[in-house]
Amino acid sequence: MNTRILELKDKMKHKKIDALMVQTRANVFYLTQFDTNPHERLVAVIIFQTSSPIMICPNMEVNQVKTVFTDGDIISYSDTENPWQKILEYFIDQNLQPTQFAIETSMSWARMNALESVIEDVKFQEADSLLHALRLVKDSKEIAILKEAAHFADEGVLAGINALREGVTEMEVLAAVEYSLKRIGIREMSFSTMVLFGENAGDPHGNPGDRQLKKGDAVLFDLGVMWKGYASDITRTVFFDHIKKEDEEIYNTVLEAQRRSLLACAPGNPISKLDSEARSFISKQGYGDYFPHRIGHGLGIEVHEFPSLSDQNTDSLKSGMVFTIEPGIYIPNQAGVRIEDDIIITEDGFEILTQFPKDLTIVPL
Amino acid sequence: MNTRILELKDKMKHKKIDALMVQTRANVFYLTQFDTNPHERLVAVIIFQTSSPIMICPNMEVNQVKTVFTDGDIISYSDTENPWQKILEYFIDQNLQPTQFAIETSMSWARMNALESVIEDVKFQEADSLLHALRLVKDSKEIAILKEAAHFADEGVLAGINALREGVTEMEVLAAVEYSLKRIGIREMSFSTMVLFGENAGDPHGNPGDRQLKKGDAVLFDLGVMWKGYASDITRTVFFDHIKKEDEEIYNTVLEAQRRSLLACAPGNPISKLDSEARSFISKQGYGDYFPHRIGHGLGIEVHEFPSLSDQNTDSLKSGMVFTIEPGIYIPNQAGVRIEDDIIITEDGFEILTQFPKDLTIVPL
Repeated sequence: MNTRILELKDKMKHKKIDALMVQTRANVFYLTQFDTNPHERLVAVIIFQTSSPIMICPNMEVNQVKTVFTDGDIISYSDTENPWQKILEYFIDQNLQPTQFAIETSMSWARMNALESVIEDVKFQEADSLLHALRLVKDSKEIAILKEAAHFADEGVLAGINALREGVTEMEVLAAVEYSLKRIGIREMSFSTMVLFGENAGDPHGNPGDRQLKKGDAVLFDLGVMWKGYASDITRTVFFDHIKKEDEEIYNTVLEAQRRSLLACAPGNPISKLDSEARSFISKQGYGDYFPHRIGHGLGIEVHEFPSLSDQNTDSLKSGMVFTIEPGIYIPNQAGVRIEDDIIITEDGFEILTQFPKDLTIVPL
Repeated sequence: MNTRILELKDKMKHKKIDALMVQTRANVFYLTQFDTNPHERLVAVIIFQTSSPIMICPNMEVNQVKTVFTDGDIISYSDTENPWQKILEYFIDQNLQPTQFAIETSMSWARMNALESVIEDVKFQEADSLLHALRLVKDSKEIAILKEAAHFADEGVLAGINALREGVTEMEVLAAVEYSLKRIGIREMSFSTMVLFGENAGDPHGNPGDRQLKKGDAVLFDLGVMWKGYASDITRTVFFDHIKKEDEEIYNTVLEAQRRSLLACAPGNPISKLDSEARSFISKQGYGDYFPHRIGHGLGIEVHEFPSLSDQNTDSLKSGMVFTIEPGIYIPNQAGVRIEDDIIITEDGFEILTQFPKDLTIVPL
């Protein structure tokens, strides 16, 4: 049986959990390597304390599931069958009567109702903490994939810079970024690609549109790819033709803030320190009001996962954690700068997965 | 107050619902025109039977929310504040004590727990049926946008056909399709674009990859865009250089099946007839085992919404319903053909929103 399922069974024992169901794309993939977007259809894994796990999927997915899931039975259903009824039949057939049932807290009310209709006297408890604890530390195979994903993100930034011309629109540059990645095999970006020019970059939640590139504009790229089930996420800010004095000061402040945060990246350090190191420097430089978000977020199967890098996080860094470090300064209606890298905590410090240069860059006309 | 919220209040009265909360992107957009992907953060609307609605959003979204939501108070929160606590404070301040509380059945267990911690003695009931009933019939403004979205889907197919060359890969053609759309302003496709060649098209859930185009291949495009909050979805199958006799028979069978289904598109007809008309023809031609999915799905703010066009749906068609009609035949390891259009039911029949030609097309070398 795969080691992740075994580890989970072990944790379930300690918590007296009879059965644990996962039904999010991310956790199903983590436990089985089966990656699909089933839309409204149920794809789930149930792990039992005392018997083999089962997987539930639509009929049309069975052949693909069989190639990755060999640890237990597969229950499949057609579009006109009720998967919950089939789960019930399996439980009866196998004489399974789990009562302490752990589920993801993101599970919907509809699915909880369906599960309750199938299992008498079921008591729900949350499965998130067990799953997060496993996913929080990446293994060597995951790290290898995350590095590849980060490399594609670097490629995306390069393609974007190569597409900069006076008068080009944000959407035209965005299209060029994604074209360069998709044609070499990237099926999915990890989130909506962001390309923002000038004052648009001053809005941390700006949307790319038909704003045309002008001399002296900041150009902010925020993008990432999904690769073999894992996400990358990079932000770079460059300047077109020349840089205004005030933008240069902002750029250097963000770069130094990121450097200070990176210096705090080592096993055992408090996670909160990563945010506070950057934030205190930005505040000292007078830009404290213009850095409105946390310093970063965990990265893995999901582009936003644990750990959360806020100044409220009292946990400590561990070797194998992967996350972003992304300080930013946004002056409304003027300009914005964000610099973001993907980081892994190593045995004795950190490694940066995204490699695109961060030196202040003026892209020539 | 906007008419959708008024209609909902009216329906709530009949069902004795004190408050109704929506917190999915689709329903928040439907009720407020505010379109955002807040990831894990809460963006919600609560409609009360006896007072003005409220909207809850992160601080950084407030300015954008204000431009669209003018029907009531806005409650905003920072990354370190608990939005549910702020909702509680508002309830106390306004002396609101809803007990019959309707929620979307897709709402997560975590959010239900949070809501229960805030409202004493809350009783949940489902809000889906009220919201579906509203969204099922599109108004003239929605129809105008859906037509525009369908037009972009047509453009995508054209760009794909223009990219066909001997030896090109599925991903290269996919990249060309999305490039053509994104550069003219499409921020988001409505689902992962599908470009499948030859035997890959024989898998209804195939994934585009590095398969190279050969003479005689079927080429299946399935794609759509998000435009002003609405989705389109088109499938066309063309052939490269020449067509095999057996593929031609399949193509003509699918085209005729679609034609028969379309003829059943008129207000008052049973929805199930759309599937059965196509399915019975495909079966008669001997391909019944190779049409494994329902004939179509509703289309609107979501690419899969109500109505579901299965042979089990006992409802009747109504003017203003929008959905896909997409029969397909998939011969494993050989070829597949699907033809899909977006349809609106009109007062006296139907109109096809996607306009790309469906005549059997052989794309020359």
